[in-house]
Amino acid sequence: MTSAFDFAPLLPAGLPAPAARWTGLAKYSFVGGNNDPEQVPVEGLIDAANAVLRREGKTLATYGLASGPHGYRPLREFLTAKLKRDAGIDCVADDILIVSGSLQALDLVNATLLARGDTVIVERETYQGALNRLTRLGVNAVGIPLDQEGMRMDALAAALADLKRHGVTPKYIYTIPTVQNPTGTIMPEARRAELLKLAAQYGVPIFEDDCYADLIWDGKRPPALYAMGRNRGVIHIGSFSKSIAPALRVGYIVAPWEMLSRMLALKTDAGSGALEQMVLAEYCAPHFTSHVPKLTRGLRAKLDTLMEALDEQFGTAAEFRDPKGGIFLWVKLPDNVDTLKLYQAALAAGVAINPGPEWSTDKAYAGSRLRLCFASPSREQIREGVAVLAEVCRREFGVPSRIANVEKQVRA
Amino acid sequence: MTSAFDFAPLLPAGLPAPAARWTGLAKYSFVGGNNDPEQVPVEGLIDAANAVLRREGKTLATYGLASGPHGYRPLREFLTAKLKRDAGIDCVADDILIVSGSLQALDLVNATLLARGDTVIVERETYQGALNRLTRLGVNAVGIPLDQEGMRMDALAAALADLKRHGVTPKYIYTIPTVQNPTGTIMPEARRAELLKLAAQYGVPIFEDDCYADLIWDGKRPPALYAMGRNRGVIHIGSFSKSIAPALRVGYIVAPWEMLSRMLALKTDAGSGALEQMVLAEYCAPHFTSHVPKLTRGLRAKLDTLMEALDEQFGTAAEFRDPKGGIFLWVKLPDNVDTLKLYQAALAAGVAINPGPEWSTDKAYAGSRLRLCFASPSREQIREGVAVLAEVCRREFGVPSRIANVEKQVRA
Repeated sequence: MTSAFDFAPLLPAGLPAPAARWTGLAKYSFVGGNNDPEQVPVEGLIDAANAVLRREGKTLATYGLASGPHGYRPLREFLTAKLKRDAGIDCVADDILIVSGSLQALDLVNATLLARGDTVIVERETYQGALNRLTRLGVNAVGIPLDQEGMRMDALAAALADLKRHGVTPKYIYTIPTVQNPTGTIMPEARRAELLKLAAQYGVPIFEDDCYADLIWDGKRPPALYAMGRNRGVIHIGSFSKSIAPALRVGYIVAPWEMLSRMLALKTDAGSGALEQMVLAEYCAPHFTSHVPKLTRGLRAKLDTLMEALDEQFGTAAEFRDPKGGIFLWVKLPDNVDTLKLYQAALAAGVAINPGPEWSTDKAYAGSRLRLCFASPSREQIREGVAVLAEVCRREFGVPSRIANVEKQVRA
Repeated sequence: MTSAFDFAPLLPAGLPAPAARWTGLAKYSFVGGNNDPEQVPVEGLIDAANAVLRREGKTLATYGLASGPHGYRPLREFLTAKLKRDAGIDCVADDILIVSGSLQALDLVNATLLARGDTVIVERETYQGALNRLTRLGVNAVGIPLDQEGMRMDALAAALADLKRHGVTPKYIYTIPTVQNPTGTIMPEARRAELLKLAAQYGVPIFEDDCYADLIWDGKRPPALYAMGRNRGVIHIGSFSKSIAPALRVGYIVAPWEMLSRMLALKTDAGSGALEQMVLAEYCAPHFTSHVPKLTRGLRAKLDTLMEALDEQFGTAAEFRDPKGGIFLWVKLPDNVDTLKLYQAALAAGVAINPGPEWSTDKAYAGSRLRLCFASPSREQIREGVAVLAEVCRREFGVPSRIANVEKQVRA
């Protein structure tokens, strides 16, 4: 009875591997949706917390702040105005469900629509968290290649026709049309119209993930698919993680009541965190539109630093396109570089990167690609981290050439 | 293409019924784990938010606040001290996982241990949210009757033996030993030892839900099962919902790494809300031990009001035992009262109650019982709400007798 209890025989089949012990953040971290610590609007959040707690703090005694299961009403009211202004979305507060980050949005949409063995369509390169969830659920993800305008409509049309020939109706088309993750493209309005037409033609809903859409260098974006979809066959999700701060776990879903009522039945968490919703609503209503351009200017400067560092350290060995916004750069290295191996070697040297195969349905295509997130490290850390990454890559794969490295040492 | 998109053909089998539109809180609400609005420590939370945001606000730019996936480290450090002091639990910060309320704790423990068709043991009267989750997962819940000291060990021993004869090993024994929901009992230390012995004998882990354990009138409680369990076969969960405020969605799990590492692999939400964790840690470290006795004094006064109102309005028709703590009273009405029907009729009259069958594995036994939560309504609302409830009950079921009602009118 005093020997340690053994839980192992009780575990059900199909659990994911246990987590490893956390060992801290890498010295040079180019992973995760982290943001710039210097750009968290700390004073604004303090003022907001003071004001909203003093005015409404007592409502914390009630689950859902007496705003009901959709979430704090003033935050939903801010969102209806914001979504109208930025994304052309006409909706009311009850069309919005506040969730615990857009990850809970992914889980709720998936739980409402997917069963093991189902098929969905995704962008070939896409958010790792979306892909991992589909794998876990036993859902087949068909990847559609992208170009500079996002998901390619010729390839989508071919995939839909092919699936139909095989009697398969995909459960949704998942797209990140506005600052695509990881490629950074923005789908133009004309292509959005094509996408909506194809989706309607085949009876497939669109799952629009707009969680990076606030971070666009020139602030201009096409209307959301949700706004353009006349048949209401679009589920739209967004987040405050990128525009304010990721450790605040607040996202939202905009969907027809037919779907929201299903998701509400599955959201059995007694509401998302109220204090975060209250502080966000209080801060964002007056400050969101001035905060975001300031944030994006800072992010753009970090991106410039990253691209300069890559040019300097990797020369022509690193290929990338200047993204239109966001917090990440999608980089192609020479074909002989295996970024899964590079990831391991770089991590041992203190540099964390996202290896391409984790962000794509086509592991071979993405094998020499990687994602670098630039919002969190300082500009100095970006320069140093890219230099270390280049050294590791040269040691492991012979690229970039020594010349670039010598140049770096001269400059240092 | 312009007719509305129909999601219905895409929905998988087995979804719960869609949610109904929210219509607001009842005028007299005796349901839900809501707390007393007057007892939310608003000024303390404001001071905590100011201090912690000014000192550490920039860390909101990083998922998990650079504290790793277990949650904000200062909150886990507060908890190690609190759990040692209050519950006799010896643990370190990395034995604790901060979660989004104890509901996420239930989901993570269930996801780690349960598969469809499994069997678990629960207290016959128990938390509705736990029962609903088991139903949804297709898990068989065997209910063990309670007495004034909580789960009855003779009945547990018989159930374990019976299951063993049928070749069934239950996946866990779920218990709320410290202020049981809904009966309000506290399991004495001797019975805890018996429970641990039985669990070890049959190789069944204990799932200890201590989320009401802070709210005890005399402040005295036996050590947690987790503290007493020498074989580490106990998973312990708790919450700040009852001690501070329920709209803050912060709970925790204490478990051996063997299990925490499994739960971490399933907690794919990028961490629970950071601001709530920060504010709680900052507030609780200096103020928790003075806040809680003040809170419980107020709750005890409301319970007294509720019990007086029941005596006055229902006379001998309402039977109940004075609970040792908590926010709810478990009430027996005459056998002819069907509390599921009473629930509907009372709601139409503006009074929300929890009908007994939703809180028990034995629907017949619980059919004339109900749960009344007393923390949220004011003392005046308690008196008025119980009077309305008595009138509805008399109209629908003929009890309480008219005499009690006449008395009430005289007093009013």
